[in-house]
Amino acid sequence: MVDVARHAGVSLKTVSRVVNQEPHVSTLLRQRVLASISTLGFRRNEAASRLARGATMLTLGLIMENISNEFYSRLAKAVEAAAAEHEALVVFGSYEERPERERMLVESMYARGVDSLIIVPSAADHGWLGEHPGLTTVFVDRVPTGLDQADVVLLDDVRGGLVAAEHLIARGHRRIALISDDDGLSSVHDRASGYRTALRAAGLPVDESLVVRGVFDPWRVSREVSRLLDLADPPTALFATNNRAAIGILQALRERHERPAYVGFDDFALADVFNPGVTVVRYDVARLARSAVDLLLDGGSGGRRVKVPVELVARGSGELPGSRAKP
Amino acid sequence: MVDVARHAGVSLKTVSRVVNQEPHVSTLLRQRVLASISTLGFRRNEAASRLARGATMLTLGLIMENISNEFYSRLAKAVEAAAAEHEALVVFGSYEERPERERMLVESMYARGVDSLIIVPSAADHGWLGEHPGLTTVFVDRVPTGLDQADVVLLDDVRGGLVAAEHLIARGHRRIALISDDDGLSSVHDRASGYRTALRAAGLPVDESLVVRGVFDPWRVSREVSRLLDLADPPTALFATNNRAAIGILQALRERHERPAYVGFDDFALADVFNPGVTVVRYDVARLARSAVDLLLDGGSGGRRVKVPVELVARGSGELPGSRAKP
Repeated sequence: MVDVARHAGVSLKTVSRVVNQEPHVSTLLRQRVLASISTLGFRRNEAASRLARGATMLTLGLIMENISNEFYSRLAKAVEAAAAEHEALVVFGSYEERPERERMLVESMYARGVDSLIIVPSAADHGWLGEHPGLTTVFVDRVPTGLDQADVVLLDDVRGGLVAAEHLIARGHRRIALISDDDGLSSVHDRASGYRTALRAAGLPVDESLVVRGVFDPWRVSREVSRLLDLADPPTALFATNNRAAIGILQALRERHERPAYVGFDDFALADVFNPGVTVVRYDVARLARSAVDLLLDGGSGGRRVKVPVELVARGSGELPGSRAKP
Repeated sequence: MVDVARHAGVSLKTVSRVVNQEPHVSTLLRQRVLASISTLGFRRNEAASRLARGATMLTLGLIMENISNEFYSRLAKAVEAAAAEHEALVVFGSYEERPERERMLVESMYARGVDSLIIVPSAADHGWLGEHPGLTTVFVDRVPTGLDQADVVLLDDVRGGLVAAEHLIARGHRRIALISDDDGLSSVHDRASGYRTALRAAGLPVDESLVVRGVFDPWRVSREVSRLLDLADPPTALFATNNRAAIGILQALRERHERPAYVGFDDFALADVFNPGVTVVRYDVARLARSAVDLLLDGGSGGRRVKVPVELVARGSGELPGSRAKP
């Protein structure tokens, strides 16, 4: 700043006023100072000083599978809104099914002083998180493995699976397929568990040949759905445990003449634009995000669980009747 | 750290090794140090020290309308990937049609030392951006108003509007509606301009009663599309200048018996799941993002323009033939 003052031929106070955007500096002086700053490459020092000021401002980290998937982009928007209420910004990272990238994102944020993290964890062990003094984490949507005292905000996944299957059973369906991804994830596991409970309660067998596990992308889901519909005794209904699975079902049905009923988990913007509309288990994303931000800013005592309720929204696809013709 | 070393009864070097996660520290020593750190409330100093180290690490800012819209979530994902190649993280902010929030996001990032920003600008004047020494900005998708020397990465919007309208004209359409939002945005303006050029080149009049401006959300688009289809001489085709407009068309058509042809601008995940598939003008989002990150890290000399090419993807909706029955 001394160099800038000398170069511009103004006082140190004037330079300081310009840099801090204070009033009472003439346009001429301000321009002279800015020109000198630019000439002298002031940038590095300026950044350091701003950084020192910015150190008291909160930035939260949000680590998830993939920001371009609608579940995550909605979550990101809601976390941003909840963080904004505390004048906090959000830095995000996508690990895309790669646990080593998830860890790298944590380390990278931590190294930048972002020590309040919201994580939608992968299925991998998270024991290594304990080695970061000062790091506060809240997990969303899934219980992380390998951590005893994690703060977690979950959806009521068991109930979601239960109401989805009950809804289909009530419409006469007896052969209901389950389309799910990695059941090492607590969310997937719990949604499947609700589905099984509903079937058993209705006196229906859980036919494992109708249970699809470990399919992640819509294209593979679509192939699996076609395979199921080609069975000698095909399902008349399907329950998709996430939005990717629901989209895979839509893709498969585009090419098929069968019209099985189906219920998805996770709402999506176009769910009511399809015909029939897509019946889904939905929840308040803002509440999910706010609960996570609140726990995070509350300091992470650990071991707390928040459960966000779910509800079924009937839009047409889940209300198609089951075939009663079969024995 | 001296206090921690004294409390744990270890050397300063050991504390430093634990904190910096270096190898060659026994589990026992590490646990003792972590326990002391936790007891002494080391967090604040630790954060400051990490912040000092983190200061050399790059964090980019990404400011846009709304992360939950698919155009922006795709862009965010691509910016994240391009930034990761430079070991940079991304902090994001959504201003949601509120220019004052856009400015607040810039100030908020700047105050935290995030001085490399990618902005999808609102239609408001951006002259105030000049008052931030050390701030580097690259604009994406739209030319900002009020800045002489902005670096901007654009899509070839004029060509996009041109090929969309030409495609519909080639299938026999003579009455082609334009569904657009704020034409104070250069992207919207240029797409409309391409549409007009194509019509004039084909000797067709631009019927202003078929031009809809300023509709932002799909629900309002849907209402406008229904209004157009109810005209005495309705359009037989539509061109939607963004994904929200295309979705609004899909919504309207769900309730109507007419089957006008339509072409959207911006691809979206479910475009090929609808029947017919949605014909769109698309582009390489990764290229858009990488160009912006490259310009940003190149230091922002200002005044540079990059134009990303577009192409039409035929999926069905844009290939429906025009009615030739009318005089």
